[in-house]
Amino acid sequence: MREFVPPSTRFVDLPDGFAMHRGGTLHGARIAYETLGRLNAARDNVILILTGLSADAHSASHADDPSPGWWEAMLGPGKPIDTNSWYVVCINSLGSCKGSTGPASVNPRTGERYRLDFPSLCIEDIADAAASTVHALGFERLACVIGTSMGGMSALSLLARHPGIARTHINVSGAVHALPFSIAFRSLQREAIRRDPHWNRGHYDAESYPRHGMLTARKLGMITYRSPREWEDRFGRARTERGLRTTDEPFAPDFEVESFLESHAHRFLRGFDPNSYLYLSYCMDQFDLGESCGSTTGEALSRMDLEKALVIGVETDILFPLRQQHDIAAGLSSGGTDVQFLPVDSPQGHDAFLSDPDRFGPPISKFLSVG
Amino acid sequence: MREFVPPSTRFVDLPDGFAMHRGGTLHGARIAYETLGRLNAARDNVILILTGLSADAHSASHADDPSPGWWEAMLGPGKPIDTNSWYVVCINSLGSCKGSTGPASVNPRTGERYRLDFPSLCIEDIADAAASTVHALGFERLACVIGTSMGGMSALSLLARHPGIARTHINVSGAVHALPFSIAFRSLQREAIRRDPHWNRGHYDAESYPRHGMLTARKLGMITYRSPREWEDRFGRARTERGLRTTDEPFAPDFEVESFLESHAHRFLRGFDPNSYLYLSYCMDQFDLGESCGSTTGEALSRMDLEKALVIGVETDILFPLRQQHDIAAGLSSGGTDVQFLPVDSPQGHDAFLSDPDRFGPPISKFLSVG
Repeated sequence: MREFVPPSTRFVDLPDGFAMHRGGTLHGARIAYETLGRLNAARDNVILILTGLSADAHSASHADDPSPGWWEAMLGPGKPIDTNSWYVVCINSLGSCKGSTGPASVNPRTGERYRLDFPSLCIEDIADAAASTVHALGFERLACVIGTSMGGMSALSLLARHPGIARTHINVSGAVHALPFSIAFRSLQREAIRRDPHWNRGHYDAESYPRHGMLTARKLGMITYRSPREWEDRFGRARTERGLRTTDEPFAPDFEVESFLESHAHRFLRGFDPNSYLYLSYCMDQFDLGESCGSTTGEALSRMDLEKALVIGVETDILFPLRQQHDIAAGLSSGGTDVQFLPVDSPQGHDAFLSDPDRFGPPISKFLSVG
Repeated sequence: MREFVPPSTRFVDLPDGFAMHRGGTLHGARIAYETLGRLNAARDNVILILTGLSADAHSASHADDPSPGWWEAMLGPGKPIDTNSWYVVCINSLGSCKGSTGPASVNPRTGERYRLDFPSLCIEDIADAAASTVHALGFERLACVIGTSMGGMSALSLLARHPGIARTHINVSGAVHALPFSIAFRSLQREAIRRDPHWNRGHYDAESYPRHGMLTARKLGMITYRSPREWEDRFGRARTERGLRTTDEPFAPDFEVESFLESHAHRFLRGFDPNSYLYLSYCMDQFDLGESCGSTTGEALSRMDLEKALVIGVETDILFPLRQQHDIAAGLSSGGTDVQFLPVDSPQGHDAFLSDPDRFGPPISKFLSVG
């Protein structure tokens, strides 16, 4: 299988014997990251970005890699997160397949890929690996930690487990835990992969790959990343031009929305390791900020030693619904943080921060520019 | 394979050579129905019920079959649809597997089951078969036609294609067409069945049955039949008592919501024919009331010759969202029908008419008792 690491990605080694939250240790593990902008002399202009499930460390184009990143509209000189001022470090999550150590990596103890021998992965491990990376790069206190989607969970875990690691926080479409509707969706995605005979309990390769399982998982994911309102405006009941239907396939797709899902899923297909998808998806369901801290959510949110925070959610988000961001904001505020809660009226659902960036840029820019 | 017909179901033959809307004819086809209550001397107390995708004709218990029906709370002596006054005929949809002719039926021309040789099925065919049943039973004008979910589509098609067939209409969580979000969900359900190697292009049997495909399809369906709000109240993040997880199944379900989906899907598994599921699911996506009438939705809704109508929807319905029932009501009203639109504030989503009947009984009872 190919590795899927952007060309300008750099690496930090995790301490040998990195202890995982639910048991097991990693040896020779590393975290992939990219940077944008310049570190200032005071080393106090560092913004850390923790990403969603499928993102890599290449958040935006830069001199060493001019290809667009996953948050291209938001990051760069003169953009909302202005790299003329800020030194941005974006991390690929532990357990992913975009350069950081994960199930697709080779276990140095065996010389074979980990596959399902990779230890149980938790959001707490992603957070601890991020803290380790921050310290390895020589930063004491970040100016800001930004987390989007799953990265919003990772950021909260990082802040609760390493209080004081950041002065400020921007949480975009995150949550303190997953709700049952979201768990159900992700459970079915994992089931689609696990039921694919080619998954073979994690022992697939490029020739025998759980293609159908991954296609179904990604389509299901896309349903939750967008919103009914967007699709009604965008696709309505339009049929594909020629139709995907043939006479011997009586139930084959013929609506634009089906074609959209199909082409999106195909683009994703070979770009992500199925085992990594299972590990990351599962750890999102398991995460619970309060439980993780042996306390309540409120107590966890009150011990982060933040000066201020911006919490953004989207009114049409069905995966991390808006009340979850409201709850984060309320909890941080109760804990003494100066919080701004911003509900965004976008039709684009959970993915609005990617597909509708104009609504996120101005408030993020303003938050970063004041104090 | 077993047939899944309730014991007291009766049958009406469709005219031989029954012409299907998109081509093909059926020979020796029949419609399964059950009745409740007594026909009065004037023959003007007949209520016809058209059902959702998976329901049979046994809507409620009666002397010949005391087992509870799918709408038990609503139908019977002294119940909201009071069988002391009304003579209720509930029809199993053409194309289903609960007694009416469908893909699991034997084609008299070949002596083999139709399977995928069953003609293309449309909501219009379900409607025409219902009209044929009404006439075969000797009724000129129904007192009311009630349609729930897919049955709400079938009822609108029946009324548009056979104006004057009913004096009044109750539409429960129906729609004039499917929206792209709903199409996406049903498309993935069909894909799960079609991708199951045991589906075998419709040539399965009891020994080689598309079990995994049907389980996934039903779980996906259940996600759309309920609501995030209900599941949050009901399951939250509760884990199953012993957990369904075993050490060699690292991603196996362990939340209550996953266990709920699993057990519901297992109950459904052998009770419905997979090909029938595909045909009915597909025809819901294809249906468009305006297109079907060669006109606009408004024109179609204005030609039904109804005295009055009650249109009910549920605020938490994500499959047939409330604005779709609002649009039916508005269209009927513009066409001159005396319409009552009732948005129901239930957490139970699309299935509220089944699982939260107390909110439906009083308004339905009141509608039927006045004039």
